[in-house]
Amino acid sequence: MEESSAPSSKKGAKKAEAKAKKEALKAQRAAELAAAAAAALAATNLEDDPAKDNYGNKQTTISAFSQDTGEVEIRSLDDTYIGKTVIVRAWLQKSRIQSAKIGFVELRKGGNWDIQGVIMASEEAPVISRRMVKWVTSINPESFVAVEAKVKQPLEPVKSCRVSGLELHITKCFVLASAPAMLGMTMGIANQPIVNFSDEGAQVGDTDNGKASEAAAENSAPAASMLTHLDNIAMHKRAPVQQAIADIRIEVKKLFRSYLEARRFKEFEPPCLIGAASEGGANVFRLPYFGEEAFLAQSPQFYKQFEIAGGRERVFCIGPVFRAENSNTPRHMTEFTGLDVEMEIKDSYTEVISILEGVLLSIFRGLQERCAVEIDTVRSVYHSEPLLLPELGKEVRLTFAEAQQLLRDEGPPEFANVRDDEDMSTPQEKALGEVVRTKYKTDFYVIDKFPETARPFYAKIDDAGTRVGDGVRVTNAFDMFIRGQEVLSGGQRIHDPAELEERIRDKGVNPESAGIKEYLTTFRQVGVPPHGGGGFGLDRVVAWFLALPSVHLAAYYPRTPKRLLP
Amino acid sequence: MEESSAPSSKKGAKKAEAKAKKEALKAQRAAELAAAAAAALAATNLEDDPAKDNYGNKQTTISAFSQDTGEVEIRSLDDTYIGKTVIVRAWLQKSRIQSAKIGFVELRKGGNWDIQGVIMASEEAPVISRRMVKWVTSINPESFVAVEAKVKQPLEPVKSCRVSGLELHITKCFVLASAPAMLGMTMGIANQPIVNFSDEGAQVGDTDNGKASEAAAENSAPAASMLTHLDNIAMHKRAPVQQAIADIRIEVKKLFRSYLEARRFKEFEPPCLIGAASEGGANVFRLPYFGEEAFLAQSPQFYKQFEIAGGRERVFCIGPVFRAENSNTPRHMTEFTGLDVEMEIKDSYTEVISILEGVLLSIFRGLQERCAVEIDTVRSVYHSEPLLLPELGKEVRLTFAEAQQLLRDEGPPEFANVRDDEDMSTPQEKALGEVVRTKYKTDFYVIDKFPETARPFYAKIDDAGTRVGDGVRVTNAFDMFIRGQEVLSGGQRIHDPAELEERIRDKGVNPESAGIKEYLTTFRQVGVPPHGGGGFGLDRVVAWFLALPSVHLAAYYPRTPKRLLP
Repeated sequence: MEESSAPSSKKGAKKAEAKAKKEALKAQRAAELAAAAAAALAATNLEDDPAKDNYGNKQTTISAFSQDTGEVEIRSLDDTYIGKTVIVRAWLQKSRIQSAKIGFVELRKGGNWDIQGVIMASEEAPVISRRMVKWVTSINPESFVAVEAKVKQPLEPVKSCRVSGLELHITKCFVLASAPAMLGMTMGIANQPIVNFSDEGAQVGDTDNGKASEAAAENSAPAASMLTHLDNIAMHKRAPVQQAIADIRIEVKKLFRSYLEARRFKEFEPPCLIGAASEGGANVFRLPYFGEEAFLAQSPQFYKQFEIAGGRERVFCIGPVFRAENSNTPRHMTEFTGLDVEMEIKDSYTEVISILEGVLLSIFRGLQERCAVEIDTVRSVYHSEPLLLPELGKEVRLTFAEAQQLLRDEGPPEFANVRDDEDMSTPQEKALGEVVRTKYKTDFYVIDKFPETARPFYAKIDDAGTRVGDGVRVTNAFDMFIRGQEVLSGGQRIHDPAELEERIRDKGVNPESAGIKEYLTTFRQVGVPPHGGGGFGLDRVVAWFLALPSVHLAAYYPRTPKRLLP
Repeated sequence: MEESSAPSSKKGAKKAEAKAKKEALKAQRAAELAAAAAAALAATNLEDDPAKDNYGNKQTTISAFSQDTGEVEIRSLDDTYIGKTVIVRAWLQKSRIQSAKIGFVELRKGGNWDIQGVIMASEEAPVISRRMVKWVTSINPESFVAVEAKVKQPLEPVKSCRVSGLELHITKCFVLASAPAMLGMTMGIANQPIVNFSDEGAQVGDTDNGKASEAAAENSAPAASMLTHLDNIAMHKRAPVQQAIADIRIEVKKLFRSYLEARRFKEFEPPCLIGAASEGGANVFRLPYFGEEAFLAQSPQFYKQFEIAGGRERVFCIGPVFRAENSNTPRHMTEFTGLDVEMEIKDSYTEVISILEGVLLSIFRGLQERCAVEIDTVRSVYHSEPLLLPELGKEVRLTFAEAQQLLRDEGPPEFANVRDDEDMSTPQEKALGEVVRTKYKTDFYVIDKFPETARPFYAKIDDAGTRVGDGVRVTNAFDMFIRGQEVLSGGQRIHDPAELEERIRDKGVNPESAGIKEYLTTFRQVGVPPHGGGGFGLDRVVAWFLALPSVHLAAYYPRTPKRLLP
């Protein structure tokens, strides 16, 4: 599906680029006109305007409104306000003058709540002069304004605004913060799908943003590259699509936390600065530290286990993790937010699978329920199919060997010989996602019992002694997938120090090396109960739940090998 | 108050050290005896023991209990369980054999929930042999066990345990994870006040742990240094006092979040890796980054403001911040958790004061209500007076000039000449805390309108043009204090780019320098509404609320210039 969209992707991007140039010219012309109008206004003396106290440039906080007029958020406006005078603070996103006596503006606040404002000349109090009409409709788009207005019902619903059943008849209007006449990126462009995620600014990203740029080309405004978006960070963030993604991201964290806290998990903060490149040493950031060397944590793994050793029973953490990997793809970042869980095990490590499966399903179901509007907003820009979730009690769990068998039997011919003792490749994972979706009607599933070759030294070997392929042992370790993409890794950890040391040696790691030694020591110093856990990346879960073309869209300030600003 | 305790501090520390040596010898003897007993037990053949299936060393998960016996957490045990057989998993913290036929153990779980277990030889089913009695009472303290037991009422309350009205008559006992015979730090020591917070392991810390070490000296077990605690991280964490501190820390975050979320603040994650040493450049960690240089964020200040520019309206964040400051004191760490807030301002920056004052009071009042047991646990080890809070509606807000006047008039004589245009020193702050407590009966208060000399370039100058001292302007910036120690800094920020650039130049910073340039650009690219905010350190709020002798006690894994492990 995604592969087939590659050709149209390029076509769409070209169309969009051509349109972008045209739009940029148009925007520049508009800006020049607006600047000229503003200059003309500024040149005339306002003193003879009978409406002069009702509008102007304040560039500060404001309390110049009549004391008995209530302030209201656009999202809170409803029919009960009809006929009332209110104060609204908002971004002025659009304006047009219809005649010398009447103009229209669009006011936006609260992410993507917008409403139409009307400014109409009037000689009765409150006086509204023609100059005021002209001034209000000349305000630079994306300026922050405070208006006093009477709430009225429009003659017909305002289709272009979310609050379509009401409009604001403006009686006062002050600019609290001016946008410049010429924005680096207009809202029209900011809310279009991004056509290019490369930090080089050259080729189209390697995922399915073909459809996105097609959509852009067909739409009113053209699209920009991720570079342009990040260079105009405030406009990027103000776009309703990014507001919706940010709100969904927040909800993921809330759902994660509430599911775990209800089950007596306790939050903790692992350190970012660590004294040893504990998990291997590849792709780790190093820094000078008071004459020594420090490292940035690649995962909270060891610290989660220290919490269990320390009697904390069930823990979770949410925080930054770092990878010094020189991968310039829409799937990679050098810093991202990890959500991690670790827990004592009673009878079996399947308790860990149940908790992690439960937490992910609670997140996905919770998002579908609580963020329906936000998901629609995102889909209106980045089209995607809803995530197909299993019915309650019909969750799909396959062993790694069963998954490989399925791929051999029902997958594409190139995977007819996949082995049970070798880790899956990304294309295999994607293909398996398609097979599972067809067979089990779900985009979410668990693959358990990975071969030891595919797992780190702390993964506990299966007690039953199961072997696969050429006699490779399997582990009590699993991955969880959505749409054929791994979102979570987890498993039971070794809690016995002798067994742990043996596995460390088996993996060719020196048990006396820095970090590993202290890790092992903790297990030797005290008894550590059986335990397991797992973790996932917040950015990826958001991006893949929404089928976004890049994980960078789900991050607030994406970090790549080439970008550390803003 | 704190100064006067200095002499007794040294005396207490010496007493405690002497006792520590004695205790260490005693512990070693006990360990040798236990090891010998264990060896003797292991040497005998268990096969002829009729109770052989009811105890033993499993070192794994367990489901060997009868299926119809319910598992219960110690904290959940109450009178309704009397007469019932239950399964309990816990840390065995103490044991003693009273005769060949009867022994006692203490089982602990859930932080500091403990209960007495009784093991009594019996020939009737379930059979309990004398060897089993001996074996159970020989289990190394801090091993993790699973027991099957009948819940009974003791003859008299078990004073040494939190669950004093019940005891567990053990019928089966398995060790799931053995502690070694000789612990690096016993629980008795781990739960004593720490006598020395220096990373050098030499002198006593510079705060009031005098009282703490006195208490240690008078108590049953001696005390150890912070170094010993951190080298035995699992035992450090298992101590009830540390469990209670960790639980209080969690509650601070919850209270912070719930207060702000109820007021429509949205969480976001600022980056740790940044492209420029934005706020000055002193004390910043630097690291190589793909051929360039990266820095670790010292605060989320710029990113909070970008969120406001990006239309997020009200935001907060909780995450790590870094200071490359070579300060080896109990007040400093190189990495700590920052809690930060930023919000649009409507009429006045006092809206920001109200929110931040509200969030701190909600935290302090919330802790007193929800964590009474945990606070008592901490106080039983680190004595402190309850934090005196203002009555609702009687919060104390002073201007900086009023505070200095108060210090001149009612403070100690050495502060008779403090100036209104110079920042307060730490001793001045402490003295002011005493004066305010006496005069206003509160340990919590706000100092507002700091002189511009004491504030960074982004602090907004007071609109009224107030000047203090030798004509220095004051800012809309404030600090909040508890017990004379600053816990929070905040204020209104400059939102107008021209004004901001002027202040940047005034402070001798080059507006074209890396980081600053991009910061300024954001304000120029779009209109940014008036806004303000503030932030505080989680570790310090916890430590100072509890009047702990070191902020390191409030951190999970304290980072200092000399310590990055565990």
